[in-house]
Amino acid sequence: MEEVKVFLRKGAQHRVENGHPWVYQSELDYIEGEFQPGDIVDVYNFRQRFIGRGYINPRSQIIVRLLSRQQEPIDRNFFKKRIETAWRYRQTFLAEPEFCRLVYGEADFLPALIIDKFGQYLVMQTLALGIDLYKETIISVLEELFAPDGIYERNDVPVRKLEGLDMRKGYLKGSFPTQIIVKENGIPFYADIENGQKTGFFYDQRENRRFLEPVVKDAEVLDCFCHTGSFAIHSALYGAKSIHSIDISEDAITLAKKNAAMNGVEDRCNFEVANAFDALRSLVEEHRQYDVVILDPPAFTKSRSSIEGAARGYKEINLRGLKLTRPGGFLITCSCSYHMDRDLFKAVVVDAARDAKRIIREVEYRTQAKDHPILPAAAETNYLKFLVLQVVE
Amino acid sequence: MEEVKVFLRKGAQHRVENGHPWVYQSELDYIEGEFQPGDIVDVYNFRQRFIGRGYINPRSQIIVRLLSRQQEPIDRNFFKKRIETAWRYRQTFLAEPEFCRLVYGEADFLPALIIDKFGQYLVMQTLALGIDLYKETIISVLEELFAPDGIYERNDVPVRKLEGLDMRKGYLKGSFPTQIIVKENGIPFYADIENGQKTGFFYDQRENRRFLEPVVKDAEVLDCFCHTGSFAIHSALYGAKSIHSIDISEDAITLAKKNAAMNGVEDRCNFEVANAFDALRSLVEEHRQYDVVILDPPAFTKSRSSIEGAARGYKEINLRGLKLTRPGGFLITCSCSYHMDRDLFKAVVVDAARDAKRIIREVEYRTQAKDHPILPAAAETNYLKFLVLQVVE
Repeated sequence: MEEVKVFLRKGAQHRVENGHPWVYQSELDYIEGEFQPGDIVDVYNFRQRFIGRGYINPRSQIIVRLLSRQQEPIDRNFFKKRIETAWRYRQTFLAEPEFCRLVYGEADFLPALIIDKFGQYLVMQTLALGIDLYKETIISVLEELFAPDGIYERNDVPVRKLEGLDMRKGYLKGSFPTQIIVKENGIPFYADIENGQKTGFFYDQRENRRFLEPVVKDAEVLDCFCHTGSFAIHSALYGAKSIHSIDISEDAITLAKKNAAMNGVEDRCNFEVANAFDALRSLVEEHRQYDVVILDPPAFTKSRSSIEGAARGYKEINLRGLKLTRPGGFLITCSCSYHMDRDLFKAVVVDAARDAKRIIREVEYRTQAKDHPILPAAAETNYLKFLVLQVVE
Repeated sequence: MEEVKVFLRKGAQHRVENGHPWVYQSELDYIEGEFQPGDIVDVYNFRQRFIGRGYINPRSQIIVRLLSRQQEPIDRNFFKKRIETAWRYRQTFLAEPEFCRLVYGEADFLPALIIDKFGQYLVMQTLALGIDLYKETIISVLEELFAPDGIYERNDVPVRKLEGLDMRKGYLKGSFPTQIIVKENGIPFYADIENGQKTGFFYDQRENRRFLEPVVKDAEVLDCFCHTGSFAIHSALYGAKSIHSIDISEDAITLAKKNAAMNGVEDRCNFEVANAFDALRSLVEEHRQYDVVILDPPAFTKSRSSIEGAARGYKEINLRGLKLTRPGGFLITCSCSYHMDRDLFKAVVVDAARDAKRIIREVEYRTQAKDHPILPAAAETNYLKFLVLQVVE
């Protein structure tokens, strides 16, 4: 097969040469050779110097995603090496690697591939054409390395349409009940890998949840956007007196209650199906106060253009969260919008504190868990903000 | 006594109203009332709204530093309340609060006051006139709250001259040997509170040092700018095979060797008195490689104007550090220059990785230890960068 060469325009090479794995349509100069969508191509700068090898899809704005910085074959061995490296990384940094994000796409040098490990079950997403074509190869490697009891596909995500792919979900290997038990910091949780959000469980706050321990002892906790109850149940097990949790999803609350019961903390957990924005407003009007307030909302923005509206949304909930925190207590506030960057998110909270007339100090400002590594040259891989503030006065 | 009122110019109030404790000369509109340098004054915005209360020194560019956002008396009770709050904070967040930075100036709402706790000994710095005037009050509070065996003053710092204060060091209470033993993550270290840098020991990397544990097992470690050996000894106790440590200070290396011996790890620690810049260059020329490279240099810049030179210095050592790291190994790189901000420091390292032709990913990006809290509205309180990178290829 003839080698296909993609040349970048002069000046367009810096981001990719710095380590970013994406080539945009607009950065292209010309392409040498014939190719089909999904084929492996080599990317060169305008000086004809090789930058990296990846898969091409002319239908996508991101025309090439790099798999390697070397001229190596992209075959079963390549995928095996990549997945072994990813697994070794999780084994190095996680206390319970059996439950982890095993492959985090770009940051594991396998763009658009997500694999979550739920003990003996794996859940997989192939979010671009070029990686989707290797699905069978990847499954074969996973079977060799992990001998899983089952593999499930959660490709029911709209982003696949941009790549010309269909939306689908279902078993890739085996057939098993899709409500399974995962562990996070040693604590068991039910996860619904068929109908839950994304792949069924969010591992990305794992280490962050442990930061609750010093602040929730004997505390009254308000937990907004609680999803399936992980912050609430961690709080209860770390000694909180009571936790009032709110989420708009009835399914999430049903699972949260089940999770609390499984952990024997249902007596201290109060789960409410409600719009958290409205609930925060009402609680402020009622002059309620808590020792710890947790805000972990879904992304308010997925694009740069809607960032102002998102900032207003974050300011509103943080203003209310601050008002609801007792002097000396703690506000734990999160954002999973990549476009709300770390500094901007902090600035929004500082702004909210001024309006709420509260004095704050920063205890901890963390990002996503270690099984969601970050490429320093690709800011998109770094999306989570987890900010712990003491509301001093 | 008549109340002195300091009014800010219109437009100059935002930073201070947001929570920053400093008023600059240039932000002043006018002052109502008579005052002596060091007196307590009230700061108002141009709308005559009270912002906060602090001490004034017309000799300093920072003319007022705020102690409180309330119109409360600044007396012994005030200092007692502040120090009690600071101590409670350390007890909440530290595993061994007996060894901590007890008061971290602005971030504990006691501007220009530093108190380090070394078990039963306290070391104190009063770095502005307004706080220096309360030295006896503070000592009296410390005696009441901690009944320390001794208090030592490390006011031998040039910054005091800007405030019209002399440079001095010596006993404030008791008389005791000034080489003492402190603990960090349960590990004993000698600290020289009379002649060591700053107050004799740096607690600010405490939590960061624990992040060595997963990466140094069986590793060959290079430890540049090792000071009195804390990273080296942590590495040895966490299972490193060998540690080569370099520092230019003979006194620091002498103490480092003593620390290694006290911890029974001197057989795996090799301490060298050398200029780390030169040593890094030689090691690269010799094509040496290590599993883990640690770079923890002193601040390369203390002002915004010298930031370009500092960035070049950081790039140089990180370029060499990257070259000295084996594929799959880890570079642990720090900066304690406030002016090298988080994003800039990361950008410098990305730049170095491109030049070194190494692929990196971010494992962890932390800041200073919890007993050095941060005021989100005062970026100056957030100075430390601790970046762990995997050098993938």
